[in-house]
Amino acid sequence: MDAARLRSLLEDVARGAVSAHDAAEALRGLPYEDLGFARVDHHRALRQGVPEVVLGEPKTVDQIVAIAQAIVARGDNLLVTRVAADKARDVCARVPGARYDEASRIVSLELAPPQARGGRVAVVTAGTSDIPVAEEAAEVLRLTGHEVVRRYDCGVAGLHRLLDQREVLASSDVVIAIAGMEGALPSVVGGLVACPVIAVPTSVGYGAHLGGLAPLMTMLTTCSAGVLVVNIDNGFGAAMAAARILRLKG
Amino acid sequence: MDAARLRSLLEDVARGAVSAHDAAEALRGLPYEDLGFARVDHHRALRQGVPEVVLGEPKTVDQIVAIAQAIVARGDNLLVTRVAADKARDVCARVPGARYDEASRIVSLELAPPQARGGRVAVVTAGTSDIPVAEEAAEVLRLTGHEVVRRYDCGVAGLHRLLDQREVLASSDVVIAIAGMEGALPSVVGGLVACPVIAVPTSVGYGAHLGGLAPLMTMLTTCSAGVLVVNIDNGFGAAMAAARILRLKG
Amino acid sequence: MDAARLRSLLEDVARGAVSAHDAAEALRGLPYEDLGFARVDHHRALRQGVPEVVLGEPKTVDQIVAIAQAIVARGDNLLVTRVAADKARDVCARVPGARYDEASRIVSLELAPPQARGGRVAVVTAGTSDIPVAEEAAEVLRLTGHEVVRRYDCGVAGLHRLLDQREVLASSDVVIAIAGMEGALPSVVGGLVACPVIAVPTSVGYGAHLGGLAPLMTMLTTCSAGVLVVNIDNGFGAAMAAARILRLKG
Amino acid sequence: MDAARLRSLLEDVARGAVSAHDAAEALRGLPYEDLGFARVDHHRALRQGVPEVVLGEPKTVDQIVAIAQAIVARGDNLLVTRVAADKARDVCARVPGARYDEASRIVSLELAPPQARGGRVAVVTAGTSDIPVAEEAAEVLRLTGHEVVRRYDCGVAGLHRLLDQREVLASSDVVIAIAGMEGALPSVVGGLVACPVIAVPTSVGYGAHLGGLAPLMTMLTTCSAGVLVVNIDNGFGAAMAAARILRLKG
Amino acid sequence: MDAARLRSLLEDVARGAVSAHDAAEALRGLPYEDLGFARVDHHRALRQGVPEVVLGEPKTVDQIVAIAQAIVARGDNLLVTRVAADKARDVCARVPGARYDEASRIVSLELAPPQARGGRVAVVTAGTSDIPVAEEAAEVLRLTGHEVVRRYDCGVAGLHRLLDQREVLASSDVVIAIAGMEGALPSVVGGLVACPVIAVPTSVGYGAHLGGLAPLMTMLTTCSAGVLVVNIDNGFGAAMAAARILRLKG
Amino acid sequence: MDAARLRSLLEDVARGAVSAHDAAEALRGLPYEDLGFARVDHHRALRQGVPEVVLGEPKTVDQIVAIAQAIVARGDNLLVTRVAADKARDVCARVPGARYDEASRIVSLELAPPQARGGRVAVVTAGTSDIPVAEEAAEVLRLTGHEVVRRYDCGVAGLHRLLDQREVLASSDVVIAIAGMEGALPSVVGGLVACPVIAVPTSVGYGAHLGGLAPLMTMLTTCSAGVLVVNIDNGFGAAMAAARILRLKG
Amino acid sequence: MDAARLRSLLEDVARGAVSAHDAAEALRGLPYEDLGFARVDHHRALRQGVPEVVLGEPKTVDQIVAIAQAIVARGDNLLVTRVAADKARDVCARVPGARYDEASRIVSLELAPPQARGGRVAVVTAGTSDIPVAEEAAEVLRLTGHEVVRRYDCGVAGLHRLLDQREVLASSDVVIAIAGMEGALPSVVGGLVACPVIAVPTSVGYGAHLGGLAPLMTMLTTCSAGVLVVNIDNGFGAAMAAARILRLKG
Amino acid sequence: MDAARLRSLLEDVARGAVSAHDAAEALRGLPYEDLGFARVDHHRALRQGVPEVVLGEPKTVDQIVAIAQAIVARGDNLLVTRVAADKARDVCARVPGARYDEASRIVSLELAPPQARGGRVAVVTAGTSDIPVAEEAAEVLRLTGHEVVRRYDCGVAGLHRLLDQREVLASSDVVIAIAGMEGALPSVVGGLVACPVIAVPTSVGYGAHLGGLAPLMTMLTTCSAGVLVVNIDNGFGAAMAAARILRLKG
Repeated sequence: MDAARLRSLLEDVARGAVSAHDAAEALRGLPYEDLGFARVDHHRALRQGVPEVVLGEPKTVDQIVAIAQAIVARGDNLLVTRVAADKARDVCARVPGARYDEASRIVSLELAPPQARGGRVAVVTAGTSDIPVAEEAAEVLRLTGHEVVRRYDCGVAGLHRLLDQREVLASSDVVIAIAGMEGALPSVVGGLVACPVIAVPTSVGYGAHLGGLAPLMTMLTTCSAGVLVVNIDNGFGAAMAAARILRLKG
Repeated sequence: MDAARLRSLLEDVARGAVSAHDAAEALRGLPYEDLGFARVDHHRALRQGVPEVVLGEPKTVDQIVAIAQAIVARGDNLLVTRVAADKARDVCARVPGARYDEASRIVSLELAPPQARGGRVAVVTAGTSDIPVAEEAAEVLRLTGHEVVRRYDCGVAGLHRLLDQREVLASSDVVIAIAGMEGALPSVVGGLVACPVIAVPTSVGYGAHLGGLAPLMTMLTTCSAGVLVVNIDNGFGAAMAAARILRLKG
Repeated sequence: MDAARLRSLLEDVARGAVSAHDAAEALRGLPYEDLGFARVDHHRALRQGVPEVVLGEPKTVDQIVAIAQAIVARGDNLLVTRVAADKARDVCARVPGARYDEASRIVSLELAPPQARGGRVAVVTAGTSDIPVAEEAAEVLRLTGHEVVRRYDCGVAGLHRLLDQREVLASSDVVIAIAGMEGALPSVVGGLVACPVIAVPTSVGYGAHLGGLAPLMTMLTTCSAGVLVVNIDNGFGAAMAAARILRLKG
Repeated sequence: MDAARLRSLLEDVARGAVSAHDAAEALRGLPYEDLGFARVDHHRALRQGVPEVVLGEPKTVDQIVAIAQAIVARGDNLLVTRVAADKARDVCARVPGARYDEASRIVSLELAPPQARGGRVAVVTAGTSDIPVAEEAAEVLRLTGHEVVRRYDCGVAGLHRLLDQREVLASSDVVIAIAGMEGALPSVVGGLVACPVIAVPTSVGYGAHLGGLAPLMTMLTTCSAGVLVVNIDNGFGAAMAAARILRLKG
Repeated sequence: MDAARLRSLLEDVARGAVSAHDAAEALRGLPYEDLGFARVDHHRALRQGVPEVVLGEPKTVDQIVAIAQAIVARGDNLLVTRVAADKARDVCARVPGARYDEASRIVSLELAPPQARGGRVAVVTAGTSDIPVAEEAAEVLRLTGHEVVRRYDCGVAGLHRLLDQREVLASSDVVIAIAGMEGALPSVVGGLVACPVIAVPTSVGYGAHLGGLAPLMTMLTTCSAGVLVVNIDNGFGAAMAAARILRLKG
Repeated sequence: MDAARLRSLLEDVARGAVSAHDAAEALRGLPYEDLGFARVDHHRALRQGVPEVVLGEPKTVDQIVAIAQAIVARGDNLLVTRVAADKARDVCARVPGARYDEASRIVSLELAPPQARGGRVAVVTAGTSDIPVAEEAAEVLRLTGHEVVRRYDCGVAGLHRLLDQREVLASSDVVIAIAGMEGALPSVVGGLVACPVIAVPTSVGYGAHLGGLAPLMTMLTTCSAGVLVVNIDNGFGAAMAAARILRLKG
Repeated sequence: MDAARLRSLLEDVARGAVSAHDAAEALRGLPYEDLGFARVDHHRALRQGVPEVVLGEPKTVDQIVAIAQAIVARGDNLLVTRVAADKARDVCARVPGARYDEASRIVSLELAPPQARGGRVAVVTAGTSDIPVAEEAAEVLRLTGHEVVRRYDCGVAGLHRLLDQREVLASSDVVIAIAGMEGALPSVVGGLVACPVIAVPTSVGYGAHLGGLAPLMTMLTTCSAGVLVVNIDNGFGAAMAAARILRLKG
Repeated sequence: MDAARLRSLLEDVARGAVSAHDAAEALRGLPYEDLGFARVDHHRALRQGVPEVVLGEPKTVDQIVAIAQAIVARGDNLLVTRVAADKARDVCARVPGARYDEASRIVSLELAPPQARGGRVAVVTAGTSDIPVAEEAAEVLRLTGHEVVRRYDCGVAGLHRLLDQREVLASSDVVIAIAGMEGALPSVVGGLVACPVIAVPTSVGYGAHLGGLAPLMTMLTTCSAGVLVVNIDNGFGAAMAAARILRLKG
């Protein structure tokens, strides 16, 4: 239930195409629907411009399916992140139409193609192993109607690999810079572009890397002014932040 | 040396108002000026839309003064952050025209009023003690030509203090949410608004607060999708990020 | 062996209904029974008002069974927490009458229904994934004779989900507020109610969440005065604390 | 402005003793008063049963004085915690009637003696050096109308020092157990009494003590079921929690 | 090859019972034997009074077997610690005479019964789950000829369980106090006895326990003067330290 | 009041040299004396063989003086550790006969020369800067009647400096090995001697040294079997542990 | 494509042995080849003297195979580190000629024997369990044309094991000193030799070892001047650093 | 006493220019001189090619002076690092000829100009505030006879500042790359040059920088193969390592 669909519904009521009763029924889930173990926030699309996204990792298959059904029943597109392959298989088997994208670990169901929104986001990674996080960001952006360009394996140890992407970066509205290991990529990117840079540390690394704390601290203490940071491996959060930013484009 | 001044200089050369020699002299500092102990990045304004800002805290008075003189000599506005009061006194005594704002700990010198840019930023704090960080953000924004509204002491323990600001928040283009203690403010703000939210943890607290690590971790692990984070007490970084974002407005 | 049963036993001896020899035998386990690898504290119910509860997680099936038999043999109700499903199956197979509650991971055996005690506890969670910890608390409270109301998935990112529960919270004697991710829920709850608030951080989260340290630090540094904290995922501890508090009700 | 004074004011209006205009004026500060840099929460006493307490440590003298004046102007008692001696001197000089208690580092001003409330709290420390935290708790409790008994230097290395206090502990409604070093005291106390135990770690110690993290972790991982924990050195928080608990008494 | 066996060998040579050649052969491994991947320290028994003990955990079965054969070939008793059950099975199958003690996770082979040494060690645990660490200590002590008394599940939450053991503790030469959770046991034991107390933190616990760091910090910061600490779960180290201490008994 | 003095007192009573009344008076402080803010444990000497030692660092001058007077009044020797120079001056001025040893930061008052006890302790340091911790250990040992040999600046980077002390180490009953920086000394010492080795990490170092955590972790994870560890900078604890160990000598 | 092969190619073009077209084709991959998910840096050998080495651990089999094929297709030797045994099997099955060395966990394919380079590297370990890291270093050095001598199990607890290697160490150009547990080996080695010492902490250990942080901190805070450190378990990095150093030999 | 002076002394003895007695006297300090509180390692120059350098920070003025006198008395150059300005003043006043370099915080006394050694070291910093650490490295290198080139303020946020130094870096034998904040500089430098790169993290930064842990972790987890790391702020260690490396040049 986003702003467009709400307006259209109310217009339908106004011109008699929908009865007050049916409209009430359609709006019954507002502001949220209580499933007992979950309160599905159908009105988030109205409030924040993006539908409720389900964090799949710590939930059981039963919980994901029940929430998915509630969302789909309201006519909203479904988006579940951080779903392991075997869990995804079970969910897709029980939610008709749902599909799993292994690269991004996302389960989605598009009742309607996402409404196109302005703005272009460059998703850049330092290494090959950071790609799953990048794909999570890219897929969430695609499913919320944004244009994405991908540039992978551009780490700073081979600077020319990054400098070759300068043009693409300069012509983007937002850059999401993703890096494991020491996480130096966003510092360099931040110095190359004037647009907002969202840094995403990843858990790719070992030893003093501490599961991503090393690149996280790197990004928080960057000498590049105005670089923004989200949690380790949080491709979803980076995409949501980019979506918030791109609303300013109009 | 920002884009407008560069264009104007080149037009002056084109129509003979400025000799090639003088233009060359004016541009001599590009891309940076080597002071031996520092390389002043005069061309950052061109590249990133904001002038080079000097981090005052770890520098000596001599270093700050020399860098300040180089910046002012190029005709740029001066902006030095995190300057202790006694150091600021010495710097201002030696850099004519420089002034110190105690609330934000900023030394600045405005050769020209900052060029007004679009967009409005709400700067919100959880407590009274977070104000110095907020003022750093607000003052940097003001000096780079942005409109700021301040709302202080709106912590979540007295929720009505925050909910009363809903209208101001909703009508801003970016919200900078600043909090020490447990740092819960940005999570709640992120749920209230659809615009970008920049979270700034502060070092206000004690014990398990660990100098700001507690609110930093709170903000990074927020359940509010799309909240962005900068380093502890980094009001400057939040302002720079907001400036990057507001460029999208046009 | 709680205070009521002890008194009744002594009265039986007084009026000749029980021989001194049999009473001595019944009391033989006081103050504790030495199983070699464990000392079962039968007299805890007398001392603290709650029976000894067994922490199942680090114990072998053999150990749990032997302790369970000693407790049941004394006529006390059995309560074993943090038992994995497969281990629970083995225990239940060997302790007649024991049952396993998968949601709370508790094995229990009620020889007699728990004696009803005054007071009502609201168990609130921020997310769906915090439910197992909530159920541990709720089930322990139920087994010790307390009334519980559950309110799940009320995280602060969708504030209305929490504000809708204000009435329930206000009419409870104790609130147990459970949250993973950034753990902001107890701060907000603490500002809404005047009764004791027990905050339980959970291990639900990833990255900078550090297995629950993030919400733990959040809760310890809360700006809500008088919020109390227990260990990560410690639903049992929260319930025990609530039981201690409710004894004041009389 | 607590519940009793509000009721009395409204009764005065009802029987004409106070004009509606004056009542309105008296209530003007509800729900909070905006000082620009602070929002004083006059209605906290109504909502939570205790007046707003000011955390003095990170605030300037100017800020403390202004907030104090606003509180006193509303007719409420003043309570400022964690005030260093020199700062306290300045505050007391500017807020007539305010007094400083060095042991607890509290500045207070009692317009009226605190309304006596039921319940007795035992404040116990492991060492002599934990006394300032204990005094903060005790003084806050006294100023909010509670009875306090102090037992200091009862650490577990000389167990008889603690066991001698068993009777006092057993006859209290709440025990606040305060310890630096390894912080083992609350574990032992929790095993001796049936009432609620609030554990307060202190920053007294060195080396692996890490500014209080050692006793904090000790208390969170206690084997004594139902022990509750607050932040390091947070005597105030322990007192507030005890006050919340004692409301259940009557 | 300990001091007694060396002396006896040299006496044999002196009185012609052993040829110089055979003695040389017997001593060939001194000071150590190079297996390529390991240097077996046969002369440790001479230098430190205890034979070389093999840390089994990070070694492969092949490595353990080869080292075991080298030790047995020299006529020394074998002692391998921290061996998982499946690995132990393979080792025992290939080293004739070796046996596995599941409780202590030790593989040993006693060519001769350990020479009895003076002194008695009390091994005390806080909980049932600390027993494997205790058994490692106890078994190592037994295999090096020391007398051990075990007292398990004496945690401080039920103080009488510990106080009942006072006599046993007081009559021991060394106490090894083992505890997971908050690890308060050694602090209390240290206050009860005058003999050396060796504290062993264990990894039994969860949440803020951090794999044993909580009890480790507790023990290091103990208020009981003269308590000594070894690494988490290091029952072997505690036993070796006790053996060093007991040499002073003569 | 140690065991010898107690026995002598009782013998005096037996043969009429001391009246029962006077004996009772002399024993009045047992088991401890309550000063209100401190409970002085006069009977520790009986229980543990060493007098109560006062940790001076976190106490005020008033507190130290009052405790000192209570101890001296009972006829016991006084020993206060970790006293800063200026605080020590004030204490000595108010406690007649007290003297301050700057090297060890100890205030002491010897009413009688300490009773000589058997055993010799070698106190070894890695560097010159570790000496204050070493002197604390050495002075405490001297004041409790033990023989000490000092060997300073024997760090492992110049191995010959340590190997030259092999004979001294081998002929000692206990070695206290003290090291800052990386703290490798006890590992090497532990391999050289068969007697108990007590490792003391110090706070001498910087950067990744983390105030002594680096050498602390080094010592806890040592590959030298049977090395024992105390808290960072805890020379006092090491001495107390050595005293406990040396009681075994007879 | 290293400097020698490039020079030879250009000479071939110069004397007509290779057509410009074929040379261009051979150089097509410069500066890197874009595989979409990876940018293979063929020109690293030119820039840094060593071929691109692939970090196998976080990559999928598909990714490793594709990168391997690109490298081999350019005529370069292949070197993939940190490959688990089962993954290695799949890679070798799909990349003809590739072989797996289990000890070092390296997959390699030598199209030509590595060009011999000057210099000798001693690889020394403290324990048997550190061997895999040592073998990674040794194998990488061998594959890049360097001479290696191995000395394993020379930990400082049995100092003679290390001192026996003094001659070998003294005659090497670089020493790589590898140690888990407390990691004291490089400190002692650094004091024995004048050549560069590269310290590698390993994850071998438990408890306070924290996955290698203990030896890492040990090595960083070493009292041996001029010891250099790489990440935990980073045998590859140590080898690469040694290769950089040995280039100075000429 | 380095190798050259030793050889010359022995030649003097051989040709009668120095009596055996005088030579013996000159060598008396070998292998070290015992000052009681310090063992001065005169023979380090022989063993490691560099004279003993004194870590001044944790030592008293008395200790520094005594050690300095011992070193100078042996005819060696003096080098004391990390000396605060006021302490340096006292030392210089008491050691004739000693001078203090404020930029590097080094006290030195050059009896003879350092013997020139081959090799050139580039010392590069990311920021102006890293200069003190850089100067420590540069001054130590100068005093041990090495050529140094300095390039300061070349951080990666303004990449052109670094890329401009490519030629200088490429023509150096060793690069010491020094950075605070996020410490990304060595990763980029490591990708640009083939020679050894020594990374030095500095304590310049705040918040999540944690006193230099952020750049330390960055450097340890670098994606640039073969970058070596020393402790935070350890300019001295970097210089010593460079000196070890440059010995390979011949």
